[in-house]
Amino acid sequence: MRYLCVVEYDGTNYAGWQIQPNALSIQEVIEETLSKILNNPTKIYGSGRTDAKVHAYGQTFHFDAKEITDLDRFKYSLNKVLPEDIVIKSIERVSDDFNARISAISKTYLYVLNIGEYDPFNRNYVTQCYKEIDLDAIKEASKLFVGKHNFQNFTSKDEDDDNFVREIFNIDIKEEDKIVSFVFEGNGFMRYMIRFIVGTLLQVGLGKLSVNEVKAMIDSKERNISSYKAEPQGLYLLRVNYKKK
Amino acid sequence: MRYLCVVEYDGTNYAGWQIQPNALSIQEVIEETLSKILNNPTKIYGSGRTDAKVHAYGQTFHFDAKEITDLDRFKYSLNKVLPEDIVIKSIERVSDDFNARISAISKTYLYVLNIGEYDPFNRNYVTQCYKEIDLDAIKEASKLFVGKHNFQNFTSKDEDDDNFVREIFNIDIKEEDKIVSFVFEGNGFMRYMIRFIVGTLLQVGLGKLSVNEVKAMIDSKERNISSYKAEPQGLYLLRVNYKKK
Repeated sequence: MRYLCVVEYDGTNYAGWQIQPNALSIQEVIEETLSKILNNPTKIYGSGRTDAKVHAYGQTFHFDAKEITDLDRFKYSLNKVLPEDIVIKSIERVSDDFNARISAISKTYLYVLNIGEYDPFNRNYVTQCYKEIDLDAIKEASKLFVGKHNFQNFTSKDEDDDNFVREIFNIDIKEEDKIVSFVFEGNGFMRYMIRFIVGTLLQVGLGKLSVNEVKAMIDSKERNISSYKAEPQGLYLLRVNYKKK
Repeated sequence: MRYLCVVEYDGTNYAGWQIQPNALSIQEVIEETLSKILNNPTKIYGSGRTDAKVHAYGQTFHFDAKEITDLDRFKYSLNKVLPEDIVIKSIERVSDDFNARISAISKTYLYVLNIGEYDPFNRNYVTQCYKEIDLDAIKEASKLFVGKHNFQNFTSKDEDDDNFVREIFNIDIKEEDKIVSFVFEGNGFMRYMIRFIVGTLLQVGLGKLSVNEVKAMIDSKERNISSYKAEPQGLYLLRVNYKKK
């Protein structure tokens, strides 16, 4: 049987989603916990990776196991054993051809910027901006990224790793109480893509890049990766969207 | 010259305010930083201690140093060197007979309880309550603690350490969006006193202690320390109040 989980995590103390040597990953912690509770070595398949210190409200993964009769009870047991910074929000049975990564039709990410006073209690959950920014200029420039584009200059992904074309459906930018939130929805985001886009937009907000310069970076046929990558702690994977499960 | 600082800190990663062997304290970090910047070994004197994992928005301390000509610049330098979870909010010159502890006329503490869904991003900043609580019963019982009382059953302080009488001027309890905040103002709080009071009030809210039983614990002439101590991460030293500086 195949199961799909939605998981929320505080990424502060992890080297990211994906299992790696010599560093603790969220995937590793969940696999160990699942394997223990199912009493069987169990691998999980995420919708994609998140970087070190990046958070999630709604990362997803699937796994295969014998039938789990009481899913609520199973979720409760998992959360009892998982560390305090990883919480399974839901678990449901899905069809055998469902795949948390391949079946996803879009993803929604949130990036949070604090343009007010530095707040030590929030230091791992927002990116601090110490300078004044022009939010209108940022909103204006953000429109350039919406649509289908070659994002080769906004990812560190290797050249030979398929192609760089992705579609961003929407970028919604709001400010409330000195907290600026960027919500991105798109059909896929490559490694560091949102952090490069936000980092580049911040340069526009600081008056160091013009809208035309950003346009040139997007339109360029040459690969020349943006030098501006926003910090990881302001980034959250909000939701992975599926058509059917 | 004597200086008074107000300091904000996230206590999550510290063993508390006070210097102790084999554990990192906030006092130690600040003393080391001050000594480095002043280029002279410098001791600081806090308004009182806070426990491991307890936070502060407005802890205070004083220290003696040669005249500091530009206090804004000095504060800036201190914050540059201090770790991200400790922030000096203000520094001012005070008279030589001022003492951060002795000159305090009252202190204000905040205790924060989450009665909504568990939030991993807030786990170090609120105390989680998983069960339904009767807030009216808690408010009713909280009135018993207001005024001048012998708080011997609400502190782990040693018998021979002066006396147990303190005055609580006010306890204000509010709920908003499933976050219950308790604000305590009093002329002094002994070790664990707020955590014992909140822990005891929570038992009332859960229906496990009656208002009369709490009254008996306060009125008792025998020392019989409360068994209910609320967790540290929901506690914040908000302010230390002085008449004159």
